[in-house]
Amino acid sequence: MIDPASRPGTPAQVQLGDDGRLRHFIDIEGLPKALLTEILDTADSFRGVQEAQVKKVPLLRGKTVANLFFENSTRTRATFELAAKRLSADVLNLDIKTSSTAKGETLLDTLQNLEAMQADAFVVRHSDSGAAHFIASQVTPRVAIINAGDGRHAHPTQAMLDMLTIRRHKGDFSRLRVAIVGDILHSRVARSQILALNTLGAAEVRVVAPRTLLPVDVEALGCRVFTRLSEGLAGADVVIALRLQKERMDGALLPSESEFYRHYGLTRDSLAWAHPEAIVMHPGPINRGVEIESAVADGPRSVILDQVTNGIAVRMAVLSMAVSGQTREREQRRQETQ
Amino acid sequence: MIDPASRPGTPAQVQLGDDGRLRHFIDIEGLPKALLTEILDTADSFRGVQEAQVKKVPLLRGKTVANLFFENSTRTRATFELAAKRLSADVLNLDIKTSSTAKGETLLDTLQNLEAMQADAFVVRHSDSGAAHFIASQVTPRVAIINAGDGRHAHPTQAMLDMLTIRRHKGDFSRLRVAIVGDILHSRVARSQILALNTLGAAEVRVVAPRTLLPVDVEALGCRVFTRLSEGLAGADVVIALRLQKERMDGALLPSESEFYRHYGLTRDSLAWAHPEAIVMHPGPINRGVEIESAVADGPRSVILDQVTNGIAVRMAVLSMAVSGQTREREQRRQETQ
Amino acid sequence: MIDPASRPGTPAQVQLGDDGRLRHFIDIEGLPKALLTEILDTADSFRGVQEAQVKKVPLLRGKTVANLFFENSTRTRATFELAAKRLSADVLNLDIKTSSTAKGETLLDTLQNLEAMQADAFVVRHSDSGAAHFIASQVTPRVAIINAGDGRHAHPTQAMLDMLTIRRHKGDFSRLRVAIVGDILHSRVARSQILALNTLGAAEVRVVAPRTLLPVDVEALGCRVFTRLSEGLAGADVVIALRLQKERMDGALLPSESEFYRHYGLTRDSLAWAHPEAIVMHPGPINRGVEIESAVADGPRSVILDQVTNGIAVRMAVLSMAVSGQTREREQRRQETQ
Repeated sequence: MIDPASRPGTPAQVQLGDDGRLRHFIDIEGLPKALLTEILDTADSFRGVQEAQVKKVPLLRGKTVANLFFENSTRTRATFELAAKRLSADVLNLDIKTSSTAKGETLLDTLQNLEAMQADAFVVRHSDSGAAHFIASQVTPRVAIINAGDGRHAHPTQAMLDMLTIRRHKGDFSRLRVAIVGDILHSRVARSQILALNTLGAAEVRVVAPRTLLPVDVEALGCRVFTRLSEGLAGADVVIALRLQKERMDGALLPSESEFYRHYGLTRDSLAWAHPEAIVMHPGPINRGVEIESAVADGPRSVILDQVTNGIAVRMAVLSMAVSGQTREREQRRQETQ
Repeated sequence: MIDPASRPGTPAQVQLGDDGRLRHFIDIEGLPKALLTEILDTADSFRGVQEAQVKKVPLLRGKTVANLFFENSTRTRATFELAAKRLSADVLNLDIKTSSTAKGETLLDTLQNLEAMQADAFVVRHSDSGAAHFIASQVTPRVAIINAGDGRHAHPTQAMLDMLTIRRHKGDFSRLRVAIVGDILHSRVARSQILALNTLGAAEVRVVAPRTLLPVDVEALGCRVFTRLSEGLAGADVVIALRLQKERMDGALLPSESEFYRHYGLTRDSLAWAHPEAIVMHPGPINRGVEIESAVADGPRSVILDQVTNGIAVRMAVLSMAVSGQTREREQRRQETQ
Repeated sequence: MIDPASRPGTPAQVQLGDDGRLRHFIDIEGLPKALLTEILDTADSFRGVQEAQVKKVPLLRGKTVANLFFENSTRTRATFELAAKRLSADVLNLDIKTSSTAKGETLLDTLQNLEAMQADAFVVRHSDSGAAHFIASQVTPRVAIINAGDGRHAHPTQAMLDMLTIRRHKGDFSRLRVAIVGDILHSRVARSQILALNTLGAAEVRVVAPRTLLPVDVEALGCRVFTRLSEGLAGADVVIALRLQKERMDGALLPSESEFYRHYGLTRDSLAWAHPEAIVMHPGPINRGVEIESAVADGPRSVILDQVTNGIAVRMAVLSMAVSGQTREREQRRQETQ
């Protein structure tokens, strides 16, 4: 039986309802500028909530958010858990490795069971690229699926928290030169960032990395490629260091950590190439002395901890928007069948 | 010091207060029809809550429900956790294997400590038959004990969610022929189902299994025994497939999974023996191609996902009824001692 | 960048704000009697909450309490989790061993990230003495740090729940002789108890142990030392048995458990040396037949389960006091910078 809510097609088509509003949040690709801006505006309003005495709004009261982490990530899970709780949702943390899939139940059955328990949103982290899209399009289309990182593919809430951080510090995107430095090849974050920056109209997006850490055809995503840090940083308004995903490197792509640091590390010296008021970002967790010097990470230009705070606000935004998109669709279907 | 609330005796006596109301929920055996019907009626009212925009009622606000899973079961734990949260209770998940029992504390001490922390209900899953009854009668009689499965003995909330599913689809039990198919021997579910169906007045309860998977004297529970699927299913209104508890089989009781499927699997073909409007149930997790064909599990007669939804409602019902039964008793004791 | 809220100095200085109110709770040492009494009075008021139908107050609604257990302790974590939930806080349980520290992030980064997620309190359990103090003074001074046990150093909430239990049963401290029996050497509890009893003005604090289980210079903490149980218990109003921390003993400090029990075990016989109305306490988990006879642990003089109930109340008290102390400071800083 095919659920009429299931939609084959690109993530962009799956993510939006007929009315153009968010129903899943899986990938930046194909999302219009107006929607990204709506996410940033909504997140901005939640920044105020976070600083209030009572950091809680009743938007998702009586809703259930299930954290499905097929790949371990304590930090990302914690931000989604806090985001959901501050929206007053009930949160269910499922350790998928010890669950019924071990008893021979298919993943599909597990997900449909959770849907039958009336979960309203699944936060999905998976090592396979496309996992969140598959679930949203084929398995449980009526549950709001939030991609919390799938393989090397995408990490859209990370990209959006970066956009929120840039906008809060630098304002209008149209005059900004943004340099993304480091392991572009293994980074699901970089791809989502480049897409978001282009959609939001950044003046120039640059990637800076050794050839061995650059994907083939990276220019096609819409960025200029640099292999020298001095050139890549020249005059940049925003500098984003990526984490060296050591656990994802199979072979000998890198000479050594210290050599990487010498050529691509963000230090007080190398940062001098950038604009004097450039901000420095990093998705965390930081490898001090590998991608970034401690004096920079903890210095006056660093907005790294601000990114963390913005991460909660962005996750509150996409959770509340996608769940309310699904609720609207359900209401509409109910009215149509009456 | 013997707690005056502790009552030796059968589970039936332990479960009910002097006023005949539920104070623990441990076993179907001995519970009167009126009480089972009250559980179903209460659960029915919670189905409405589950479909509302705000899936939450304040019945157990300020109460504490502790999940004590001595045996792992992610799915059952999740349903109890959601049920408790939708009643607005605070939920404590305890991983008993890593707890103080490892430090040499007896289980009895652990439970009495939790009682001293003012827990209102324990949801207990244990591999030993009788564990929930022992706790309710001997250890912490003033905490509402809900049996979430004990050894091969009982799984009463599963049986009650099956009853709710049957009643919502088929109405009055008195005209129904119900066939339970598969591994009766190792199933704590089957025993509870047979007892509940008989108490609720089902016209006929049948079990269908190879001799090696039938307990001795199963007829004494109140059922007709069939070893051929064609005869067992003939004209049945409700067909319940049981899970093949592979992990509980020690010896060579079964020839092979494929042979089991050939003789006892629910397929589109074998289902033709049942009533044309028969519903098909399974407690999950499903072994596709062992107990049931995918086309049947996902087909129009399957109510398997509906069982999951009803599971939350039934667990909300027994939690709220048992906690309020205990609260009433406590009030009464307070008044008597004044 | 040095956070102006960070204060080097002793735990006592770090714990209190300029107005003398609690902002962290790390160690009994140096805390004035008035503050300990305020904790006891506040906890007393929460005992009433615990016995109410709705065991919940809205004091920390919209606040976030993170449980950071670097050392496993299911029971202590459960009491803090319940305390925070009954104050209406959102609770985040972090299993630090599987978190980002494994990915090469420093502990410092993890904690500052959690602060950036707007956590209001960290409950810290760590095997290193001084860990909670280090975090409060150097890492996240604006987050209320509650020490849930650090190495052999301190376990101040345990000491305060013991004080609450003593005060509720025996009233005024100034006439009480209190005997602490057992493994003083490895006990972070004993040190905190001795300090609290002296601050609160107990008439006499005694420790009773074999020489091998006594720290050097224990008298300096303010106690009389006994190596014979008969002398140590003589006329005592309160008898506290300590847990034999078997997992913390490296060498052959003890002849055998049975020999310990024979000389220092609290039995119906040995208890006869104490005052006829003496109460018996134990921090749990109990080793029956090692530190204490079952007939004593479960007997009429035992207040062991009452300690557990008081533990929730004391944890509610220090959480709410420290979080409100931090909130007051933040308000003040905001006004000063305007």
